[in-house]
Amino acid sequence: MPYNAPISQIAHTLSRIARLDELAATGAFPNFDVELVAPILEEANKLARDVLAPLNPIGHKVGAKLTDAGVIAAPGLSDAYRQFVEGGWMSLAFPEQFGGQGLPKPLALAVFEMIHGANMAFGLCPLLSFGAIEALLAHGSPELQQMYLPKLISGEWTGAMNLTEPQAGSDVGALTTKAVPNGDGSYAITGQKIFITWGDHDMTPNIVQLVLARLPDAPAGSKGISLFVAPKFFVNADGSLGDRNSFKCIGLEHKMGIHASPTCVMEYTNAKGWLIGEANKGLAAMFTMMNSARLNVGLEGVAVGEAALQAGVAYAKDRRQGSISGEKGSVAIIRHPDVQRMLLTMAANVQAARAICYACGSAADIAEHHADEATRKTAKAREDLLTPLAKGWSTDRAIDVTNLGVQIHGGMGFMSETAAAQYYLDARITPIYEGTNGIQAIDLAGRKLSMDGGAAMKAMIAEVRDNARELAGVNEPGFLHLSQSLEQAADALDSATEYMLTEMSTNRDKGLAAATTYLRLAGDVVGGHFLARSAWQARDEADSGKALVLASYFAGDTLSRAQGTARALSEGAEAVFTDAGALWADD
Amino acid sequence: MPYNAPISQIAHTLSRIARLDELAATGAFPNFDVELVAPILEEANKLARDVLAPLNPIGHKVGAKLTDAGVIAAPGLSDAYRQFVEGGWMSLAFPEQFGGQGLPKPLALAVFEMIHGANMAFGLCPLLSFGAIEALLAHGSPELQQMYLPKLISGEWTGAMNLTEPQAGSDVGALTTKAVPNGDGSYAITGQKIFITWGDHDMTPNIVQLVLARLPDAPAGSKGISLFVAPKFFVNADGSLGDRNSFKCIGLEHKMGIHASPTCVMEYTNAKGWLIGEANKGLAAMFTMMNSARLNVGLEGVAVGEAALQAGVAYAKDRRQGSISGEKGSVAIIRHPDVQRMLLTMAANVQAARAICYACGSAADIAEHHADEATRKTAKAREDLLTPLAKGWSTDRAIDVTNLGVQIHGGMGFMSETAAAQYYLDARITPIYEGTNGIQAIDLAGRKLSMDGGAAMKAMIAEVRDNARELAGVNEPGFLHLSQSLEQAADALDSATEYMLTEMSTNRDKGLAAATTYLRLAGDVVGGHFLARSAWQARDEADSGKALVLASYFAGDTLSRAQGTARALSEGAEAVFTDAGALWADD
Repeated sequence: MPYNAPISQIAHTLSRIARLDELAATGAFPNFDVELVAPILEEANKLARDVLAPLNPIGHKVGAKLTDAGVIAAPGLSDAYRQFVEGGWMSLAFPEQFGGQGLPKPLALAVFEMIHGANMAFGLCPLLSFGAIEALLAHGSPELQQMYLPKLISGEWTGAMNLTEPQAGSDVGALTTKAVPNGDGSYAITGQKIFITWGDHDMTPNIVQLVLARLPDAPAGSKGISLFVAPKFFVNADGSLGDRNSFKCIGLEHKMGIHASPTCVMEYTNAKGWLIGEANKGLAAMFTMMNSARLNVGLEGVAVGEAALQAGVAYAKDRRQGSISGEKGSVAIIRHPDVQRMLLTMAANVQAARAICYACGSAADIAEHHADEATRKTAKAREDLLTPLAKGWSTDRAIDVTNLGVQIHGGMGFMSETAAAQYYLDARITPIYEGTNGIQAIDLAGRKLSMDGGAAMKAMIAEVRDNARELAGVNEPGFLHLSQSLEQAADALDSATEYMLTEMSTNRDKGLAAATTYLRLAGDVVGGHFLARSAWQARDEADSGKALVLASYFAGDTLSRAQGTARALSEGAEAVFTDAGALWADD
Repeated sequence: MPYNAPISQIAHTLSRIARLDELAATGAFPNFDVELVAPILEEANKLARDVLAPLNPIGHKVGAKLTDAGVIAAPGLSDAYRQFVEGGWMSLAFPEQFGGQGLPKPLALAVFEMIHGANMAFGLCPLLSFGAIEALLAHGSPELQQMYLPKLISGEWTGAMNLTEPQAGSDVGALTTKAVPNGDGSYAITGQKIFITWGDHDMTPNIVQLVLARLPDAPAGSKGISLFVAPKFFVNADGSLGDRNSFKCIGLEHKMGIHASPTCVMEYTNAKGWLIGEANKGLAAMFTMMNSARLNVGLEGVAVGEAALQAGVAYAKDRRQGSISGEKGSVAIIRHPDVQRMLLTMAANVQAARAICYACGSAADIAEHHADEATRKTAKAREDLLTPLAKGWSTDRAIDVTNLGVQIHGGMGFMSETAAAQYYLDARITPIYEGTNGIQAIDLAGRKLSMDGGAAMKAMIAEVRDNARELAGVNEPGFLHLSQSLEQAADALDSATEYMLTEMSTNRDKGLAAATTYLRLAGDVVGGHFLARSAWQARDEADSGKALVLASYFAGDTLSRAQGTARALSEGAEAVFTDAGALWADD
């Protein structure tokens, strides 16, 4: 069952939700023309479907290998990476100043959705390069930018992010890797980093490590960490490669999934690196990397969910079991209502997650490029609000969706070699890395709500209500029902938001206990809003039916639960706050 | 992190929910005395904790192997099985007539919860023997019973269930394996069976296959299948073993989890077997096996969930990340409210599932043994109602619970060698085998509701309301709140039941589209009811706090959603019924 990008769904989401027309109207993308979208999506699908997807099961089975010469990528990936670079796919949304194509971010998201859907383990390599590029763009000196950005943006070199240490995961401030000044402007970095995705491989001649470390006189905790760049091979003045730096991969983790993505233990022994940005301001630079990575991990959730949906539909059309009344013999299981329910749940949730991620990317572009400062500011608040939803909600749904994908396959879904099983196993990392979904929930309930007294969320809710009012304006039962569902869901999110604002400032622990449920509710409502919006904008188009089906099912199956979720949010948090200590205190 | 049975939780569930005292009062268990419970649980825990749990990670890593001589069990399991047999654990709840100990079923459930929790792959071997024993007890001739039951019940031999064929999974009536009379009362069985759990191994001298096959003149479909018994080695008149039968394991599946449980492709080539029960009545005999197996698979869900909870608590107490206000330095993550929420969710759901499974086993005993016929009939209806909840709800919750277990571990949870990862992978099969959870939902919404016009479910709801009234009778805020939650949840289940009864008889496809949500809602309400009941019965005991914490959290986090779930049930089904065809019809 090969992956084949859902081009029409993706194109509709770009036009209806990411509003490429509005991005073009900013004037910030002179190279962009809406006519480009269709051919770009078609070409990207060729890479995804024809090159990357066939390598996915092989990568799952064989994985990356650690040898004396370093990490060897899974079979076929080096050649695939070469084609990826030659196609110019890495550089789509980066500035022309450094060789990028200067196109809108959502277009790059669409392309990378296909890449992740076809081969998530492969897609992680450029995903990490993105983080390195963003950090260098935002915080690097002109010299460092000139040295690294053109090769990273072209894809000739890849980047990796070295944050985690055994005692410093979610709590990155606990890291102990040291960076000592060499006296020549460089630093000697020593320490061990774990869980370093694509930290080493043989696909490119050089790898650029971004490394968080602590200067000798640094304050304790997260206010004392600095970000460094350390290439695998030093770069000479003429751009050629020089000596090998003194760090290496000393181990690969054995993981549930993404076997073709090497997860490295990296050892730095007086490795030479250069400071990015200011000393002790590494946390801010890290968040630059993380924000990019968070949206892209959310996108992985969309992608692997879409792949699971496609595998589920194909299997359900092919597999014959059981009969239905009025027909002789066995039927394809897609005819059974319970299977249809599973497939609809998958399709609606994947599309809702896709809309949230693309909307987040669109807001990021407006925030960066719009001529009007107030518009930029509003868009930045929207991007900040949507980032934890894009990461947290999309990846939680990826677990649900790939789980249903396994279930549709019955016993075959439990077999390691089945694509549905691989999607389930690959997806499991997405709620964990780049900030666990618990961290996303705390980010939403804490930083994102508190920084403006809830203004960004209130603006979002107002938008949902506007949408509901517009949908009620026509006399069509389908849209009228959607409108009512949205109104009630907005009420639920509204009251939950008030609860969160109150508790986070008065009983913070209670607010924190409710944070994950709040993220779930917010994603449900915003996702349902975008689905309804898509259906509304599609109402005069030829394929309007599909958008309305997804919006209606999501309203029926998910928005209908919003009031209950809001109640569970406060009652559940109350119980945690009151009682949790009693359970394990004395063990 | 070794498994250690939650003896006090288990003992409370036996006394408060399974009501061992009421079972004893039937007079059907003359060997049973409540004083036996504590020592039995302690001894079983020694086997689980000290023998089986240490073999679990080894089995996950190494798995079973197929050799020319047949299947070789994972390291250590043969010796563990010997200890299991010597301890008399196999025979607990089987009739004394065939060497059993004649103890109540819930006691055996308690022991097997420990076995599955310590090593689910191992536990599957006796689980399959149970099915064979139940079928022979209910349908076997006296000769076949005498030949096989004593050795199966002692555990000297094991049994396996051969149902599935490539084209016949959920749709067992599609099977094509043939059984041709040999003229001497035996049959020649030819065909291939797949997914045969513990179909071959080297732990016992003989293996007794129960095989579904089709006689030459059998009607098409499920009305033409017959059940046969076929031993690996023939049994001589003196009980000694004779020649090898002509079937063998020709392949092992590569699975996501339960690696130490060999999943065999079995090839039968004129293998000699004997008919169990009447010709063409194999389906009824199969359901005898399946009902036992379904409850036991639900129990696996409880067990692996409990194991994941224990691993989660241990990790959360050990792992230090992040700080909390008012304390210097990092704290154990169990101090963070979001982690407490995850652990409470795991604990409450595991305990609710445990209660449902034990209550089901208790009802089965009453249905079989009570002196009063009307009481037996009511109990049988309760057992029938609870079986799909025990299987479907408990195993769906096992996915949720083991998923949270992985999440608590962060990046470590994604590593293959972590216990949390193994639990997640092992658990994934439980919603699939012995009837997928979609089949369970259809069984509940169809057979179990329709066979008495919903009387069994209405009796269950009435019991929930009685419980709510009793809890409201004391003037304690905790119980008052529980009472209100239960009342509202009972209302939701009541209206959903009316909806299901109507739709299943008028718009069957709509009812079927709602069936899975109905099973979820029913399990939520019944589980919450049992938790509240436990808390109520514990109110004067020393450790009453724990039962009330679990009940209160479950009410706050889950019962609070019941109204929303009931709404999603009908609105979601409406959308599937109306729209699903439109999505994939033209692909």
